[in-house]
Amino acid sequence: MRQSQLFTKARRETPKDEESRNAQLLIRAGFIHKEMAGVYAYLPLGLRVLEKIKAIVREEMNAVGGQELMMTTLQPKDIWEKTDRWDDSKVDNWFKTRLVSGAELGVGLTHEEPIVDAIGEYVSSYRDFPFSVYQIQNKFRNELRAKSGLLRGREFLMKDMYSFSRDQEQHEREYERIVEAYFRVYGRLGLGDITYRTHADGGIFTSRFSDEFQTLTEVGEDVIYLDESKGIAVNEEILTDENLEKLGLDRSALVPKKAVEVGNTFHLESKYTDALGVSFNDEKGENQSIVMGCYGIGISRLMGVIAELFADEKGLVWPGSVAPFRVHLLSLGADDLADETYRAFSEAGIEVLYDDRDLRAGEKFAESDLLGIPYRVVIGKRAAESGTAEVKRRTEDSAVDVPLSDLPSYLAQKA
Amino acid sequence: MRQSQLFTKARRETPKDEESRNAQLLIRAGFIHKEMAGVYAYLPLGLRVLEKIKAIVREEMNAVGGQELMMTTLQPKDIWEKTDRWDDSKVDNWFKTRLVSGAELGVGLTHEEPIVDAIGEYVSSYRDFPFSVYQIQNKFRNELRAKSGLLRGREFLMKDMYSFSRDQEQHEREYERIVEAYFRVYGRLGLGDITYRTHADGGIFTSRFSDEFQTLTEVGEDVIYLDESKGIAVNEEILTDENLEKLGLDRSALVPKKAVEVGNTFHLESKYTDALGVSFNDEKGENQSIVMGCYGIGISRLMGVIAELFADEKGLVWPGSVAPFRVHLLSLGADDLADETYRAFSEAGIEVLYDDRDLRAGEKFAESDLLGIPYRVVIGKRAAESGTAEVKRRTEDSAVDVPLSDLPSYLAQKA
Repeated sequence: MRQSQLFTKARRETPKDEESRNAQLLIRAGFIHKEMAGVYAYLPLGLRVLEKIKAIVREEMNAVGGQELMMTTLQPKDIWEKTDRWDDSKVDNWFKTRLVSGAELGVGLTHEEPIVDAIGEYVSSYRDFPFSVYQIQNKFRNELRAKSGLLRGREFLMKDMYSFSRDQEQHEREYERIVEAYFRVYGRLGLGDITYRTHADGGIFTSRFSDEFQTLTEVGEDVIYLDESKGIAVNEEILTDENLEKLGLDRSALVPKKAVEVGNTFHLESKYTDALGVSFNDEKGENQSIVMGCYGIGISRLMGVIAELFADEKGLVWPGSVAPFRVHLLSLGADDLADETYRAFSEAGIEVLYDDRDLRAGEKFAESDLLGIPYRVVIGKRAAESGTAEVKRRTEDSAVDVPLSDLPSYLAQKA
Repeated sequence: MRQSQLFTKARRETPKDEESRNAQLLIRAGFIHKEMAGVYAYLPLGLRVLEKIKAIVREEMNAVGGQELMMTTLQPKDIWEKTDRWDDSKVDNWFKTRLVSGAELGVGLTHEEPIVDAIGEYVSSYRDFPFSVYQIQNKFRNELRAKSGLLRGREFLMKDMYSFSRDQEQHEREYERIVEAYFRVYGRLGLGDITYRTHADGGIFTSRFSDEFQTLTEVGEDVIYLDESKGIAVNEEILTDENLEKLGLDRSALVPKKAVEVGNTFHLESKYTDALGVSFNDEKGENQSIVMGCYGIGISRLMGVIAELFADEKGLVWPGSVAPFRVHLLSLGADDLADETYRAFSEAGIEVLYDDRDLRAGEKFAESDLLGIPYRVVIGKRAAESGTAEVKRRTEDSAVDVPLSDLPSYLAQKA
């Protein structure tokens, strides 16, 4: 894309009404627009990052057999009353609204109830299990405070998957398969080495632990206790001798670490399926409960985590897998040659943002660093003379000279 | 995809609480789930159709330079007060909600105000124009009645584009370029021959007409007056001698036709940009108003229109461009050979739904007709003996025999 045609521009000033570093950087770089605290619009560059994260998550959920669907934001009261999750005294972060007729509606904050209600129209036999469904959709939560940018939204993009199994044994297999898929997601996002499965409280309707996926970072709001040799952690709320014994962990081996939660998975037993009267018949024709699991990944939160975690003093630093473009091509007074290079990149299928604007070199370099695209290629007067372009990785200080004709293959090969 | 792994199944009965034919068919076929009147969830087959329509619209909007972004559903009151579109006495189909703090919020029903507010952070010079931005996103409208299935939703998926120009002349060019893109969309959706540009009232702040894009169908809620020789129509509200003269149309040449609106485009002059204080400086440094246009396509409505328009007495009939799969492969007691054919299709990149379930032939045929996938391929005992498979188009009564080895190329070639 030609940058002259992109309506956003980098800003010099840090926005005054924004406290979080992730949103400050993303707003300055023109990736997001703040509508209100905890509510952000995604501008063209930001949407490209979000779509890349979605595509990775979608591929990995499809690979474990997840069936994608799309539930609704508007929620009728009745199904939530069946599980006692409608009343504000029970769930305190609903946004509620009303139909013209006066009937109360909820604005979807999670989707266990409608998902169970929908699949209940189709399942009846033990042969229907196991299966998993998921969606990637905005969720709405009426948070009292929302000062962490994309890390805690009132409106945020989430992938939520739900598994349905005929018994506990089948459920365990599905659950572990999905946990493995989670690590493939974090690996592809560049977070694999610093993200840990963290045992947490399972909630009121199961004796099992749930799992959080925690990424180590100094800006994290959570503290986890990590056994580095085993690569397993526990969170603060379950740090008791009894729990550690159950998990085979030794307190003396645990090191406290600041972290941010980038996913969670829960054993739901048959709480929701039973409450909504959704069950199946086994081989003997006897009615049985369905065992359910649920599995969340905050897509927009991940964008905030990646932005904040990898950024340096000059701006954003995107991992290649989620960068809005692979290459930032800068023309410095050699527009014809730069145009030609732009066409060559486009033909080679290399995603390129082409700064074809009439700006000083210093401005272009500063904006390029702020945007954080993995490779910067400079075509200036020297390139016209020497036949080589200056290529610099965003993460490295020095550039290398690459012959112009080799550029597409050089950039296509690089990880 | 193997149908044994798809959690949805076709239903024999027409849902009792649904009046519209499009939603009745889509519910019976397992494409959508009704949450409440005017609010539908998209199940895996339905989501595939919706994604195909989105992809076509996205490609055509990108082709005219549209920059995709994603605005927010939660809307702060202040920007809507500036244009006097907040109060329920002015706009009567808002869904409203509240923050914990008590502050009122809107649930996005359209996005002129937040879009103008967002682009206002970036535009300042005549050099920034023209440009267009768009999004594909759920809209929420508090309709009193919603009995037309996907044709009139309280929650529905819409593509809304907004163009910004430095003057009226530049605006006219952008507007006509986007209208041309609309016809490319309808053409690719199989609606090209029966969709007409229909002049309509432009609203209170312009003397220009707006345009509706109306698809002829007996089930349409609208009546348009069509000049078939010119391929142009007008709607009922502007059918005056004065307007016909302006448009160069002759009343005696106009034929009334039932139709459904599948898109609309408006000249907004500088109403929103002026009200929100967003302007630019021209070459002389003088402050000037920005001329705006807006352009809508109801994505989920289009899915309903296509479903209802092409359906026959046996069920849905999808055009190839939006069908959830290209081929419905039915195994009738020849599972090994059908498995092999399934692999061959998958390797050839042909999207195939494979009915590998243990059901009677009659059930499989009836469900295949209901689902409406363009090609049905039957692999039964006869195929094993003769080496040919029976291939039938959903729109034709008779099948043809195709040698098994030719199947992938036969199906890849067909339009």
